Amino acid sequence: MARDPAKLAELERWMRSYRPEELFDDLGELIPELAALAPRPGRRMGASRHANHGRVRPLAVPAYEPYAVSVPRPGTVRFESTRALGELLRDTYRDNPRDFRLMCPDETNSNRLGAVFEREDRCFQGPTLASDDHVSADGRVMEVLSEHLCQGWLEGYVLTGRHGMFATYEAFALVVASMATQHAKWLEASAALGWRGPVPSLNYLLTSTCWRNDHNGFSHQGPGFMDTLISKKGSVVRVYLPPDANCLLSVSDHCLGSTGYMNLIIIDKQPQLQWLDLEAARRHCAQGASVWDWAGNGGNDPDVVLACAGDTATLETLAAAAWLRSNAPELRVRVVNVVDLMKLFSPREHPHGMTDEAFAELFTLDRDVCFSFHGYAGAVHQLLHARPNAARFHVRGYKEEGTTTTPFDMVVLNETSRYHIAADAIRRARRPPRDATTLLRACDAMLDRHRAHIARHFEDLPEIERWVWPDAPRPLDDLPHPARDDVRTTERPR
Amino acid sequence: MARDPAKLAELERWMRSYRPEELFDDLGELIPELAALAPRPGRRMGASRHANHGRVRPLAVPAYEPYAVSVPRPGTVRFESTRALGELLRDTYRDNPRDFRLMCPDETNSNRLGAVFEREDRCFQGPTLASDDHVSADGRVMEVLSEHLCQGWLEGYVLTGRHGMFATYEAFALVVASMATQHAKWLEASAALGWRGPVPSLNYLLTSTCWRNDHNGFSHQGPGFMDTLISKKGSVVRVYLPPDANCLLSVSDHCLGSTGYMNLIIIDKQPQLQWLDLEAARRHCAQGASVWDWAGNGGNDPDVVLACAGDTATLETLAAAAWLRSNAPELRVRVVNVVDLMKLFSPREHPHGMTDEAFAELFTLDRDVCFSFHGYAGAVHQLLHARPNAARFHVRGYKEEGTTTTPFDMVVLNETSRYHIAADAIRRARRPPRDATTLLRACDAMLDRHRAHIARHFEDLPEIERWVWPDAPRPLDDLPHPARDDVRTTERPR
Repeated sequence: MARDPAKLAELERWMRSYRPEELFDDLGELIPELAALAPRPGRRMGASRHANHGRVRPLAVPAYEPYAVSVPRPGTVRFESTRALGELLRDTYRDNPRDFRLMCPDETNSNRLGAVFEREDRCFQGPTLASDDHVSADGRVMEVLSEHLCQGWLEGYVLTGRHGMFATYEAFALVVASMATQHAKWLEASAALGWRGPVPSLNYLLTSTCWRNDHNGFSHQGPGFMDTLISKKGSVVRVYLPPDANCLLSVSDHCLGSTGYMNLIIIDKQPQLQWLDLEAARRHCAQGASVWDWAGNGGNDPDVVLACAGDTATLETLAAAAWLRSNAPELRVRVVNVVDLMKLFSPREHPHGMTDEAFAELFTLDRDVCFSFHGYAGAVHQLLHARPNAARFHVRGYKEEGTTTTPFDMVVLNETSRYHIAADAIRRARRPPRDATTLLRACDAMLDRHRAHIARHFEDLPEIERWVWPDAPRPLDDLPHPARDDVRTTERPR
Repeated sequence: MARDPAKLAELERWMRSYRPEELFDDLGELIPELAALAPRPGRRMGASRHANHGRVRPLAVPAYEPYAVSVPRPGTVRFESTRALGELLRDTYRDNPRDFRLMCPDETNSNRLGAVFEREDRCFQGPTLASDDHVSADGRVMEVLSEHLCQGWLEGYVLTGRHGMFATYEAFALVVASMATQHAKWLEASAALGWRGPVPSLNYLLTSTCWRNDHNGFSHQGPGFMDTLISKKGSVVRVYLPPDANCLLSVSDHCLGSTGYMNLIIIDKQPQLQWLDLEAARRHCAQGASVWDWAGNGGNDPDVVLACAGDTATLETLAAAAWLRSNAPELRVRVVNVVDLMKLFSPREHPHGMTDEAFAELFTLDRDVCFSFHGYAGAVHQLLHARPNAARFHVRGYKEEGTTTTPFDMVVLNETSRYHIAADAIRRARRPPRDATTLLRACDAMLDRHRAHIARHFEDLPEIERWVWPDAPRPLDDLPHPARDDVRTTERPR
């Protein structure tokens, strides 16, 4: 069109129909009488709280120490981790009576967040019945069995400068994959606009994960929402996999108070072993990933690294470490836990990304790493590309195997169980243990026993169900994995 | 419960209320009078066409030669590739008047598939108006601006044993990520059921890709649906990135006639350079990935490999190859095109996966590979994990940069342009060309020229917009990249 004189003349006729000579002066400036018609600053549409937060009131996140779970020794106390978060959210309502909402597809209680009802009602504008449980017209717990509505409500709510969290079953978060993508794009694009202030983060809590579905089955097993988020810009997305309640508190405290992000927190709601006391959890979450020194015996020179990200992955990895220390005590094992998945990115890709030096500190430069992951292995594979010797990372994760079965059978079906991990470690260790063949056979035998047991009893073997970390060789600390040769024999789990 | 005698007694009372002694004989078999009540085989619910296809009538896919685009020389003819598919679909309607439907969110014409209206109407059950265009109550082109409906309709339709395709804008396929995941799970689970026969594949065509959005912008740029699919089992998912019309025909022919898969085909609808004649396209698609020998000069011993998957990625890679052969003729370049993305998987992960030997044949064992990709780089990174020297693959893809801009500016913003690829090749070649610094400066200068030009003219530089493959050094063939030293000087593009 730009090259067609007839079309250009037509365009000019159209533009001149607005009589620009009456609207602009000789220099092309809008005439003052018209400029004065615009609302004064602060009254303009773009300055409305509902269009542009403008004045975000920071969320008053309660100090989370009171909700901490007491963990005298790692891996011995069982607790429904999201209950602790429920209490934090209850008091977040208390301290922010007008600026905070929880969105949830009718699962607040099932997700163990029910403590919020001690302080706040579900919202329903219609008439309530006597049998209704904590329902009122001005309630701020937004329950509706539509992930689309929950997502849309929270998007709109944070854009006004207020705060919230969207808690949902892990598999069904994928329902809003497209909406989440568009919100990420909104954040990516608005970051470049100087006149836009920060927007509170959009926080997701994914519970009822693929690994624990109780009476639900294969349809409810889908960790794929994470994959959608990690493809977005590092400036806007964060994924956290807290292994226990205290880590969940630390991560949630950080996320609830943040602006400008989409924070994805994934943790199951079932009773689970607790690993870190509050101080250790705080330090671990601040680092994002660290060596769990008390769990390993590899010191500065491990034969193999067992890494894990996600609560079930952590349980199986720790159980594998204990089994190895008991059955192959000469094998030097290091255990690494990753709570902030973004640490695995290159620093060029994500601001949380570890330098290659920090990466080597955790994972060594050349030892094989048996990495047990909450989601699809591909998510970790893509983060590791171009790390030194990336091929030494052997990632196990959810691989679309599942049904309505026992918790341990889920990890067996997906080959992420403690026995799969232990066997992997034996095969991949720099110096294989003396009786490797016998040990591998023992792993297989345990898997056979498991299969026979659940076929007969419909529940897991007692030694699996009641497994705890066998002994705490030393108190929790965050010392950088010192050489432990001198104490190794006394530290072996029994 | 299994251990509580009172609960067990309660369960027994309940079960006995059905009077099993009247229903079963002494051996626990159902008594014949009751067994006879069940409908005879063929009349049972599970045998209904609507519950279990049972008797899939194979789709009569027309021979696709008549729709082929004539490509006398690679990279010189421009054509809207999906138009050729539209003609194939038109005649698919002709040959399958009762067993085929196209689902599309009101974009059939916009996606250049309008030829189907020469044979078939849009479906609308209500009264039609004189102004309606090809609308009737028994029309079998299903247009509705809801990706959810299109996906649901097609899922149900293929489960009855009939056939179809769902054509939609690439970015909005993510709307059905969760539904697609559930369909994948259905296929994964039903594969283990012997009594279920094959179900026609669910075929997706994604057009209006992230690279060409014309008047649409950032919101319409999202290649993430692919990431959702590739995490599912290799037994059910396939992703194809045909670079031109003849490859699209070959791939579509294969997908339309297949059963048991979710086939994702991604290609833009805009006029684009055509690379392969029908025979070459057929051979290339059968291999899934191959060396485009006519495009390179690297023979058996390239200094660097340029690989590409996706139409825009192919265009920019070929333009980079031509630029390098013209400006750095001593640099030995190999060009590899990947049309079947699943070929990159390990054969343990996907039945299409290449062996390491075949992989090395294409990509060498140790040369750096500048890989230009249609989607997010992470999708390729995860497929490459554990391939020999995976870190030598430098993948460029969509990285959430975009706006309403020119086609070439999209690849510049995402650093996937021919000049980015050429500069990468120069930096990463085993033997850098003599005047590397000058060449790198030339690439930067071209990018600067581009930016200045579009800021002034709102359209791409003529040399970009009208670029064609400069000369066909030799006719298309599929010889396995022979040594070319003897002819290199005469083959250099001008």
